[in-house]
Amino acid sequence: MSGKLYGIGVGPGDPELLTLKAHRILTASPVIAYPAPDFGQGKGGESFARSIVAAHISPDQEEIPIFIPMRTERFPAREIYDRAATEIGGHLDAGRDVCVLCEGDPFFYGSFMYLFERLADSHPVEIVPGVSSLMASAAALGRPIAARNDRLTVLPAPLDDEALLAAISGSDAIAIMKVGRHLKRVRALIEKAGLLPAAGYLERIGLANQRVLPLIDLEDVAAPYFSMILIYKGAEDWIAQRPLTQGDAA
Amino acid sequence: MSGKLYGIGVGPGDPELLTLKAHRILTASPVIAYPAPDFGQGKGGESFARSIVAAHISPDQEEIPIFIPMRTERFPAREIYDRAATEIGGHLDAGRDVCVLCEGDPFFYGSFMYLFERLADSHPVEIVPGVSSLMASAAALGRPIAARNDRLTVLPAPLDDEALLAAISGSDAIAIMKVGRHLKRVRALIEKAGLLPAAGYLERIGLANQRVLPLIDLEDVAAPYFSMILIYKGAEDWIAQRPLTQGDAA
Repeated sequence: MSGKLYGIGVGPGDPELLTLKAHRILTASPVIAYPAPDFGQGKGGESFARSIVAAHISPDQEEIPIFIPMRTERFPAREIYDRAATEIGGHLDAGRDVCVLCEGDPFFYGSFMYLFERLADSHPVEIVPGVSSLMASAAALGRPIAARNDRLTVLPAPLDDEALLAAISGSDAIAIMKVGRHLKRVRALIEKAGLLPAAGYLERIGLANQRVLPLIDLEDVAAPYFSMILIYKGAEDWIAQRPLTQGDAA
Repeated sequence: MSGKLYGIGVGPGDPELLTLKAHRILTASPVIAYPAPDFGQGKGGESFARSIVAAHISPDQEEIPIFIPMRTERFPAREIYDRAATEIGGHLDAGRDVCVLCEGDPFFYGSFMYLFERLADSHPVEIVPGVSSLMASAAALGRPIAARNDRLTVLPAPLDDEALLAAISGSDAIAIMKVGRHLKRVRALIEKAGLLPAAGYLERIGLANQRVLPLIDLEDVAAPYFSMILIYKGAEDWIAQRPLTQGDAA
């Protein structure tokens, strides 16, 4: 009998935002897989997803890091995920459950989809939803991201200018994900739309080095991958009163 | 010293989707508040938020149900939340922490905002983000709600036709919340946009009586309040292959 593939959301960073269900499945799985950065020349980095749940992993569990190159724009994703799916599929075929750790939620802009699309037709899969960085960012800013009849749009920063501007103008609240190296361009677009005073900037939410501040006060020209901009139309005065917080994890 | 007001997300329905943090705060709080339905003539119903975490509530904790009238379109929200905020504020002023239970996430279309806006200026508040029905619905449908550079828009069904159609046409993935009595109109709009075959319908996700099916197969003319439609543009074939599941909680 095949083992089961679990895609579990481990939340946005605060280890306490793990769900009871993810905790149960994680501790019961003989095999754990997770993405980890590959800095080239044999240098692997720490997995962010694994670091969130490190306290719950036992030495008896087999671990499969899936190394993702960080240095190149277009990495050989196909081969990397093919290889990982083959290794994971081997465990499943041998009857062992495999738990894949996913930052935030597995089905909300996650890389779990690459394993899912390779294994879901041939093996039983269960998705355990997790707390998303979207909700954690609203909590950190201290303001509902959407209320009553608000239209909320989530936009990945790599989208082109036209798509970003159109979506920003047609919504009441906007979350821009994966800001990273797109910070300067995205900030200019928000300014063009007249919404710079309505935007909050968030970085590494829930971690010891988190940052939350009005976007207008941010002087950086690039942001880390785990950064987000939330735009609250009509809340300019409120955003202006946000105190800058740095290293002040919830 | 003032007690602290906690707004904790208890997740979309499955009791196991509570976070470790929400569990810790819930069990440590001397006072717990939550919305509950008021059916009129003195008939109060069970609180959905409370039912999710009922196993963790002890008889030593004081409970404050906030009864919300179900029968009228425009209920006296102001007075109800004023009264609840006064009662909760009394506990906080007396130094007792108060934990407010919020279905899903407190800041994602939740009623917690009405207490938050009344108490946040005068008392310390902490928001504990939760798993949203948006993520639980994608998990139940078995397909990422958003991937790569998808634009995802979340729309409350009470919005007018023009706003709904414009937002639907400008996005790659669309979640329509609070479908309820708007089902017939929303379904007609989705059909008008040519997207009926790309839409999945979900009801009471994570509960024993959950339902998941292609919207095109749904024969109901009204939906419960806790229902959602997810539209996956370009995934018509995939939606068509979804088996109808009823009473099949994850």
